[in-house]
Amino acid sequence: MIINGQTEFLTLMGDPIRSVKSPMIYNPHLRKQNINTVLIPVEVSTENFANVFKAMIQIHNFKGSLVTMPHKVAAVTLADELSVTAQVAGSCNALKLSSDGKVVGDMFDGEGFVRGIKRKGFDPKDKKAIVIGSGGVGRAIAASLAGAGISTLCLSDLNIDSCKSLAQRLKTHYPTLEVVFGLENVGTYDLVVNATPLGMKENDPLPMDISQLQSHHFVGEVVMKSDITPFLQAAKAKGCQIQVGTDMLFEQIPAYLEFFDLPTITVEEARTLAEIQYL
Amino acid sequence: MIINGQTEFLTLMGDPIRSVKSPMIYNPHLRKQNINTVLIPVEVSTENFANVFKAMIQIHNFKGSLVTMPHKVAAVTLADELSVTAQVAGSCNALKLSSDGKVVGDMFDGEGFVRGIKRKGFDPKDKKAIVIGSGGVGRAIAASLAGAGISTLCLSDLNIDSCKSLAQRLKTHYPTLEVVFGLENVGTYDLVVNATPLGMKENDPLPMDISQLQSHHFVGEVVMKSDITPFLQAAKAKGCQIQVGTDMLFEQIPAYLEFFDLPTITVEEARTLAEIQYL
Repeated sequence: MIINGQTEFLTLMGDPIRSVKSPMIYNPHLRKQNINTVLIPVEVSTENFANVFKAMIQIHNFKGSLVTMPHKVAAVTLADELSVTAQVAGSCNALKLSSDGKVVGDMFDGEGFVRGIKRKGFDPKDKKAIVIGSGGVGRAIAASLAGAGISTLCLSDLNIDSCKSLAQRLKTHYPTLEVVFGLENVGTYDLVVNATPLGMKENDPLPMDISQLQSHHFVGEVVMKSDITPFLQAAKAKGCQIQVGTDMLFEQIPAYLEFFDLPTITVEEARTLAEIQYL
Repeated sequence: MIINGQTEFLTLMGDPIRSVKSPMIYNPHLRKQNINTVLIPVEVSTENFANVFKAMIQIHNFKGSLVTMPHKVAAVTLADELSVTAQVAGSCNALKLSSDGKVVGDMFDGEGFVRGIKRKGFDPKDKKAIVIGSGGVGRAIAASLAGAGISTLCLSDLNIDSCKSLAQRLKTHYPTLEVVFGLENVGTYDLVVNATPLGMKENDPLPMDISQLQSHHFVGEVVMKSDITPFLQAAKAKGCQIQVGTDMLFEQIPAYLEFFDLPTITVEEARTLAEIQYL
């Protein structure tokens, strides 16, 4: 990668940022495509995130930012234009500068999840899904499932206010979508997603009563602590088709690249680049 | 160069920035030295320069900035601590964050010039120098010559106020230095420097009456339009030893690296890297 005076840059903003892997995927890809754009990690605290981003957009060769924890909710306030998905999710993991100088925000966590299950043969259109957890990633997945035409969404979270406000935003943008609360009639659903952090710690309880899982369920996971979490292990034992947590990350890379008007990449190419860099 | 989550970055701030060459020298050098720091060009206008820099210093993995035109004077106001050279020059082309969070500013244009003439065998200590032009680069060269122990500085500029305020700052920091104005008794001087832009355009007049140049003069140039400017051509014809404009740039690279606590490089290595990248 030759960085010269014509180089443009994207940032990846988060805190902490030291373990992020995106630069090791994006930069070799962009170099290979002869694109003179580089992705730089930018670690900035919550209190300074907005100021730093607002200053960044004054830089002529700044193209935008990927946004990671803990800035995804604050990123919403920085966008002049926000995709429906980001509006429903109430969070944003991508901010770009449009040609007319506007900041455009989008949210690809749920998009990554949906692209992943679609590539595994599960089309959410007119299906019924349970999303356990209405935190950041759960809201993003619910928003993208709604965008993909799901007919019914069952939301469940200890924080019932979070579920209800999400439901309200879903109904505003997708008036025909049925939204219900609580884990009832699990057998009537097609897709079950763990979008809680349960599974990150050794002795976490399972996110739901797994005796209700049936082989026709497609079971998705967001926890990336291990590929096969205890929840996915239980789902596999029931004969369910599954999606692991890291799939959501890799599947959203092409979506990010498209958003930033950069040449896209296949998920397999992204995985290969990631593996090379991790050696 | 593998940019990852641990990568720190320096910026090179200017406007325009498209033709800068520093990233093509610094980045291959840092990669070769296994230093996980990258230099990124940042093009920002005069009105936004201070705001952008103040935001940058909120970023945990930001180390500082090289500063180029037109921001060198404004950069002075951003430093909590300023080297004597930068104070005298009234400008600053390097800003770094110290370990206690302070912004430290320095100015290496003159340092580059002085390192260059020293390496050519001209030690300014107790010598007499004429510096034609008291703009940014002239002030920087005057400041560094004073720091290197020159005994007499003759300043000349169409803007006599600029000469006088420079003289005042020189006398404040170097009370034993003799400062005179106007190009008189040229033959009694050891060093003659063109620090005006004359020579950048095709039909520019020469910066001084070259009939006064003598073979004992060491003649330095800051114009980089061509290596041998008409002024240097005249000096060579008189048998003077000379220093070309780009020497000032290459000679300050090691000074910059030392300032940023990065492994240094020889001027020859920097030239080789620059040549490789320009091919």
